[in-house]
Amino acid sequence: MVSTVYDTWLRYDINKKHHDYSAFAPYFARIYVSATCAVTNSAVEEIKLAAERIFGTAPEVVRDKPKGKYICLCFDAVATDAYKIVMDADKICVFGKTSTDLLYGTFRMLFNMVAKGGGNIAEAGTPRYALRSINHWDNGDGTIERGYSGNSIFFDNNQLTNDHTRIRDYARMMASIGINAISINNVNVHEVESRYITEDFLPGIAKYAEIFENYGIALYLSVNYASPMELGGLNTADPLDAGVKQWWKDQTTLVYKHIPNLGGYVVKADSENRPGPFTYGRNHADGANMLAEALAPHGGKVVWRCFVYDCHLDWRDRSIDRAKAAYDHFVHLDGKFSDNVYLQIKNGPMDFQIREATSPLLGAMPATNQIVEFQIAQEYTGHQIDLCYLIGMFKECLDFDTFRNGQGSYVKNHVLATAAVTNLGNDKCWTGHPLAAANLFGYGRIAYNTELSAEEIAAEWLALTMGCGEEVSKTVLPMLLSSREAYENYTTPFGLGWMVKTHLHYGVGVDDYEYSAWGTYHYANHIGFGVDRTVKSGTGYTAQYCPENAALYENIETCPEELLLFFHFVPYNHVMKNGKTLLQNYYNKHFIGCETAEKYLAQWEALAPHIDDKELYEIAHERFQRQLKNAIQWRDVVNTYFYRRTGTPDECGRKIYP
Amino acid sequence: MVSTVYDTWLRYDINKKHHDYSAFAPYFARIYVSATCAVTNSAVEEIKLAAERIFGTAPEVVRDKPKGKYICLCFDAVATDAYKIVMDADKICVFGKTSTDLLYGTFRMLFNMVAKGGGNIAEAGTPRYALRSINHWDNGDGTIERGYSGNSIFFDNNQLTNDHTRIRDYARMMASIGINAISINNVNVHEVESRYITEDFLPGIAKYAEIFENYGIALYLSVNYASPMELGGLNTADPLDAGVKQWWKDQTTLVYKHIPNLGGYVVKADSENRPGPFTYGRNHADGANMLAEALAPHGGKVVWRCFVYDCHLDWRDRSIDRAKAAYDHFVHLDGKFSDNVYLQIKNGPMDFQIREATSPLLGAMPATNQIVEFQIAQEYTGHQIDLCYLIGMFKECLDFDTFRNGQGSYVKNHVLATAAVTNLGNDKCWTGHPLAAANLFGYGRIAYNTELSAEEIAAEWLALTMGCGEEVSKTVLPMLLSSREAYENYTTPFGLGWMVKTHLHYGVGVDDYEYSAWGTYHYANHIGFGVDRTVKSGTGYTAQYCPENAALYENIETCPEELLLFFHFVPYNHVMKNGKTLLQNYYNKHFIGCETAEKYLAQWEALAPHIDDKELYEIAHERFQRQLKNAIQWRDVVNTYFYRRTGTPDECGRKIYP
Repeated sequence: MVSTVYDTWLRYDINKKHHDYSAFAPYFARIYVSATCAVTNSAVEEIKLAAERIFGTAPEVVRDKPKGKYICLCFDAVATDAYKIVMDADKICVFGKTSTDLLYGTFRMLFNMVAKGGGNIAEAGTPRYALRSINHWDNGDGTIERGYSGNSIFFDNNQLTNDHTRIRDYARMMASIGINAISINNVNVHEVESRYITEDFLPGIAKYAEIFENYGIALYLSVNYASPMELGGLNTADPLDAGVKQWWKDQTTLVYKHIPNLGGYVVKADSENRPGPFTYGRNHADGANMLAEALAPHGGKVVWRCFVYDCHLDWRDRSIDRAKAAYDHFVHLDGKFSDNVYLQIKNGPMDFQIREATSPLLGAMPATNQIVEFQIAQEYTGHQIDLCYLIGMFKECLDFDTFRNGQGSYVKNHVLATAAVTNLGNDKCWTGHPLAAANLFGYGRIAYNTELSAEEIAAEWLALTMGCGEEVSKTVLPMLLSSREAYENYTTPFGLGWMVKTHLHYGVGVDDYEYSAWGTYHYANHIGFGVDRTVKSGTGYTAQYCPENAALYENIETCPEELLLFFHFVPYNHVMKNGKTLLQNYYNKHFIGCETAEKYLAQWEALAPHIDDKELYEIAHERFQRQLKNAIQWRDVVNTYFYRRTGTPDECGRKIYP
Repeated sequence: MVSTVYDTWLRYDINKKHHDYSAFAPYFARIYVSATCAVTNSAVEEIKLAAERIFGTAPEVVRDKPKGKYICLCFDAVATDAYKIVMDADKICVFGKTSTDLLYGTFRMLFNMVAKGGGNIAEAGTPRYALRSINHWDNGDGTIERGYSGNSIFFDNNQLTNDHTRIRDYARMMASIGINAISINNVNVHEVESRYITEDFLPGIAKYAEIFENYGIALYLSVNYASPMELGGLNTADPLDAGVKQWWKDQTTLVYKHIPNLGGYVVKADSENRPGPFTYGRNHADGANMLAEALAPHGGKVVWRCFVYDCHLDWRDRSIDRAKAAYDHFVHLDGKFSDNVYLQIKNGPMDFQIREATSPLLGAMPATNQIVEFQIAQEYTGHQIDLCYLIGMFKECLDFDTFRNGQGSYVKNHVLATAAVTNLGNDKCWTGHPLAAANLFGYGRIAYNTELSAEEIAAEWLALTMGCGEEVSKTVLPMLLSSREAYENYTTPFGLGWMVKTHLHYGVGVDDYEYSAWGTYHYANHIGFGVDRTVKSGTGYTAQYCPENAALYENIETCPEELLLFFHFVPYNHVMKNGKTLLQNYYNKHFIGCETAEKYLAQWEALAPHIDDKELYEIAHERFQRQLKNAIQWRDVVNTYFYRRTGTPDECGRKIYP
């Protein structure tokens, strides 16, 4: 039974009432594959599924060039493009350099056909990055840290789920958008997950890895830096200790015996109370390189996260700035990391807020492999209750000009790979909000091709998932594209972030993080608010950028207004570019954002007759209702908060509660 | 092995180095009991234990009047006093009207001897109230709602612990202070606890009840109002439905078959999302009387809690006042409740804050049985981490003059009973902080005799627990007596309350409850703060009091300053009785409170050589350290919060962080 909620962009049959596919039907009679392997078999299976759903037929798979029209999967190791789709009178030919390229070409061929119908399905593509990864924050007990759509598909009750059917469907989804690396467990590695690199779990995880491998995906494991002590019984985890080194080598050899194609290890060390090399007076390079040495003989990588900061800060000390931490911790280590170490750096210097400056560490280590890390999981961006299409935000980061090598030094040129924390769990609707699947889809698409626009991606996702109906696209496409700004407007505009309920990270709590140890403050007083990160009078964070950007941010007149409060403490009566005060603009944003949430709900309800999957409609409808409730609370609490600070009413006379 | 931490005020041997007990020794050679029963046996056992610990001897129990000195336990049904202790050259005679009175007299005799040594141990007593109860908020899974010293002694993992030894020790503790009623499970009755009134659990609970009975204590059960549906399979819990009435009668008959001396049921209905009669358009009297009818044939009582309010309030609506809820819900039902229904009313109208006005419902229902409810568990008063001796607070409530029957209408005259939420769990140190045991001890003492002073009680507890050493008493007694004000000073002086971390209820979060649905606000703005509960301009709460009190509270000039912000929204620059502004006083209180916490830690450390039980010292020491940390955070956050509001520095130039 096809279900948009479950099949998402792989349902294939969504546009049968909009498109006439009859011209394609003859080609789907047979599939000719010149050389087969597990991955090409996956491609063949996908064509069969699509044929069955679109045409109600089962293609014949042939080993010799057939008579009549056919689909051809064809290796071409010396081609310019990784994959290429060509259609002529005889055949639809998908060329690929490798079996994975062939699989990607196959998905693209199917997607183009489904989305465009009679249109041109020809396309060629080459991945921007060799490594396009997804990180799960799944725990052994089945919970997901910052998961908003059920529990883990991999783990339950400290055992493996062994739900191979679901995991295969997941691998299909990920391969269809070009993902080729997935770490399956949380970067916070607790006792049970530490044992994933032992024979307690390796045989079962090897099965997962095999399913992934059939879709061109390498499985990664997050490891516990203290494993030599916790698993090995050593009395140290010092990376320069010979015993520790040997323990990791031996353990890694064991891991690769079970999972020969393991991608490598993901490590969060010396951050948020996790163990790491600091305990032994070593630095991150010492720590990462030791693991790299163990992985190198097997072709594995170390993905070393740069989300390192002191989470026991004293709010009283205004000179400390958590935003500076990653740069300060890592930049001096440039060139010190082994070739198979990749530093994974969050897009912003804080923690996945709705708007942050781009991390100054990105591009600042020319002799080091860097990965940019995004968060698809809507931890601070609405918990997959509130609509928030994130691809524009991701692209802003990739297109950010660091000026490290002069003008045009974009982040996308500096990094060698992308990573993203997934938004996916074992709910029938994988991503909670059905429209949140657009973020997962879109992330894969831009990781493969950074030049696609957020709008192009949303339109394609929509066509594949909810179909090409005019009502749907003219309603949902603008909703998606406006949703990030809407969320920003009714929560924390002008770059401030936080102001959420602690722990939960959903819902308004203006002061909840204000006097905490997390380095997350707005400093609102009777004069103004915002964080002074200038060199002149603040924390000096702006100096971490190249001079061009540093000057831009340092000066309140040139600082982009969407980041005004990220960089400056600004008086309420500061006049902004539109001639209105900061306070009035802040009120305005909250009123406008909330109106948008109201509009979304009404628009969605009006769309009901045009949505074929009623389950999708209902799930999203319940969420649009909750989003509106959330937006109203944000609007009223934030406006009241600042009204109580200032005594200044809204100039338009809108309701602000006293 | 005697342990102060475990034996608390029942260790008996604490003053052996301070007192010469030799004059008493001969009496402890034999115990003469004229008529024995299980309860007198408990008294005898207690005398034996004391004799063993103080004199190292085992008294002989005789049934005929002995030769030589002896202790005599003697019934005297027609005496004026419930118990009386008389010592002469031949005997120490404990008279009692009932076996329980004899047991109480026995404990008093022992306590007087232990505490006073050579002093006069003669004493007579009659309980102020016939019902002196303790409520546990223990859950079936073993957790305790608002428990700060381990898990339940009764329940674990949805089974009974059957830890009869510990429960007997607990019964001894409670009987020793005159407690005669204990409800063992949380008023929030979940699925498993609903079944305590079924044969799944009744046989085991009957064993608990038997242990209690041996110490003169009646066991109570908290019941789920929706039981006829959840257990009985009925489709309603309407109290006027014949089937529902019959179900409760039948079920109650079953309960009494197992536990003939059950005290009755405790009910929290129609509050904080618990089921109740409102669902069926009935009122609290309908609900309570229906249960009363089922219990009456067995002599059981219904304890019906008046902690009823809407926990889905809209902070935007300034006319709503949670403080008014209990009075509004119940006062019009006066005279409508059956004779065996007791309304249990919290001491204050909100929820066990460090300072509240006394509940106006107390005394406002002359034709209804009322119980005053206190909270020994330090939910909002420091979690048994911060020292907070509560007996003064309890007495303020009992001694509050309602003026209902003219001047001198004290709460203690209106109520027929007391209840308290206990602070006790299965930690070796029952109450977490060893000094928190003084609250448990003291509650029992004032429930028996409301005329004892907080200081008398603290001194006796100290003498029994930590001994009569001069260093100890001159240090710890003032600490106990000043501790409530200290906590109030560094948290929320002038009657405001709340400002705590939500859910946890420990630690500062000035705004954490400000925009919530709980009705718990401070309304701080740029002008002032506090809750206007006046008739003239506020919620009208003051009208719930008799005119004498209403006028007192209504007028900001006559309102007691410790309740100023409970009743009034007050400008920061309001000049208080000491000539300083509200804001300056608020700063002062926080500095002073924190200094006191600092002093406590230093004093405790200086006391180390004088404390014989090192475990007690260490447990308390760790808590005094945490209290200071808590106090510093409260001081700095609150002061900064109001400094940021006003821009007004401390007039003494003390550090307030910007």
